[in-house]
Amino acid sequence: MNHTNDQILELFEAELRQMCTPEEPELLYTPIIYSMSGGGKRLRPVLLLLAAEAFGGSAADAMPAAMAVEVFHNFTLLHDDIMDNAAVRRGKPSVFAKWGGNVAILSGDAMLISAYKYLACLGGDKLSRVIGIFNEMALEVCEGQQYDMDFEQAEKVSVVDYILMIERKTSALLSGSATIGATLAGASDDDIKKIYRFATELGLAFQLQDDMLDSYGDEALGKKIGGDILEGKQTYLMVQAISRATDQQREVLRTTHQRTDLSDAEKIACVKAIYDELDVKHATEQQIELRFERALSVLDSLSIASERTLHLREFARNLMGRKK
Amino acid sequence: MNHTNDQILELFEAELRQMCTPEEPELLYTPIIYSMSGGGKRLRPVLLLLAAEAFGGSAADAMPAAMAVEVFHNFTLLHDDIMDNAAVRRGKPSVFAKWGGNVAILSGDAMLISAYKYLACLGGDKLSRVIGIFNEMALEVCEGQQYDMDFEQAEKVSVVDYILMIERKTSALLSGSATIGATLAGASDDDIKKIYRFATELGLAFQLQDDMLDSYGDEALGKKIGGDILEGKQTYLMVQAISRATDQQREVLRTTHQRTDLSDAEKIACVKAIYDELDVKHATEQQIELRFERALSVLDSLSIASERTLHLREFARNLMGRKK
Repeated sequence: MNHTNDQILELFEAELRQMCTPEEPELLYTPIIYSMSGGGKRLRPVLLLLAAEAFGGSAADAMPAAMAVEVFHNFTLLHDDIMDNAAVRRGKPSVFAKWGGNVAILSGDAMLISAYKYLACLGGDKLSRVIGIFNEMALEVCEGQQYDMDFEQAEKVSVVDYILMIERKTSALLSGSATIGATLAGASDDDIKKIYRFATELGLAFQLQDDMLDSYGDEALGKKIGGDILEGKQTYLMVQAISRATDQQREVLRTTHQRTDLSDAEKIACVKAIYDELDVKHATEQQIELRFERALSVLDSLSIASERTLHLREFARNLMGRKK
Repeated sequence: MNHTNDQILELFEAELRQMCTPEEPELLYTPIIYSMSGGGKRLRPVLLLLAAEAFGGSAADAMPAAMAVEVFHNFTLLHDDIMDNAAVRRGKPSVFAKWGGNVAILSGDAMLISAYKYLACLGGDKLSRVIGIFNEMALEVCEGQQYDMDFEQAEKVSVVDYILMIERKTSALLSGSATIGATLAGASDDDIKKIYRFATELGLAFQLQDDMLDSYGDEALGKKIGGDILEGKQTYLMVQAISRATDQQREVLRTTHQRTDLSDAEKIACVKAIYDELDVKHATEQQIELRFERALSVLDSLSIASERTLHLREFARNLMGRKK
């Protein structure tokens, strides 16, 4: 019997508690422990292990790879927080804020190397089957981060380019994780391609939903509204709005976050008014549904019995905060 | 017939010219090409390939690993230049100075991943034999950099701790490279341990000589004297001097670089006067000779015919700028 999402998470957290690093140099290794024990949903290792079990592999065999993707993910957070000048991560000071940029750079480097150390624990044959997937995934994440930074300076970002960016920045690590899990379990090439597609579409749905909640989330649920708008960030709503806007609306969309004569609430209201005029909420919802449905229908097309995909479906629903 | 140092360098440079990266995102990949084509002595890949050939391996087979160590080395330079706030690298603007810290962080990350991509090109069996060596080497280099930064703030650094630091920061990449080359060529465990020792001792001799030339180099040969002294850096001469100094001398050694009432030339003269009083030049020369001799005598003890070690000896002499 395959493990449920909760059981897999528990297995992974138990493994994580075994993680140890050298004690010295303290400023290299303490931030790694701080970062890895800072919580987070462990989405990528859970997906990797669920994919492995779906195709008949064992979670124990795939565990080093699960550790590798989680350590890699946390490495990206350390470096992203420097680049984004982010002081807070998961409700605590970021490594960057707590120890400074140099420590965040070097500890991050050591984490990236540690990710490969975990991967190497898979041993010969398994290692050589997945290291290529891991490398491509890792480079795509870097590319996504670079495109994201490029877009901050860009005059106009097309909807297509925006999707290509989040495919790298958000989806690549999910699709890479799922693919590694399936590969370790000996899935067929066709199934591997499909599980990759599943996680890619799911990652897109997840990121688009995240974008939407920034403007249309429920403040009653503790979601702070409008952060992306105030930072002038590109989101799916913004690039959709820009693509549909009149010259006058476009000017407002581009400049509002920099205005000094408006309060934050006024800036948010101003941008959201145009979003409403251009109906981008609806367009985003449609895109989320499309991507989510595509992800689930890919699961239907796998060669394995459909009950083997139940926990992956549960993962997808959990990720999107859905009951069914 | 094994290749000479010059021939190996030529083979490696030819391989390097084949290196290609994606064109986009430009700000991710252009700095990689800039960094890799910026010259440098290619010490680590040359040593790796020489070690492979010494033990009967082929340079062609080991070439992906040689690329991996050179890309890794250049990755460390990108990140070190951010941490050290260094504007110039090999006579040109550093990536950090040319494109800024964020680009240097992210392109550096992509280089570290690319190093593993080259390593993965070795293929299954060879990959699994060397990835562990590569990982340990890479972590030691990070540890060395952290200790080096720690020492900048330290009240007192012992001679032993200083040696342990440069064993990581300078020697580890040389000893890792030599070990990888020998391992790929199928050297015995005993020979692998010895070639590791050879490169470790050679790396120490090289770094200590570099430290000494900062104070006692020949300005006629274009060597700028006293850079380390003006930056207040820990060097072998400084930690030796501190360990031998009277309280009064120690105070001068520690504070001179910060004095605003002295010219640079006066600061250098002031510190060097104490070095002379304490005879640290002689102590350093002795240590260099000791390490260099140890390195060469390890080569004598290898199980292979002594003529197979000729090019490694040539490498050692070249590194130290010696004719014989």
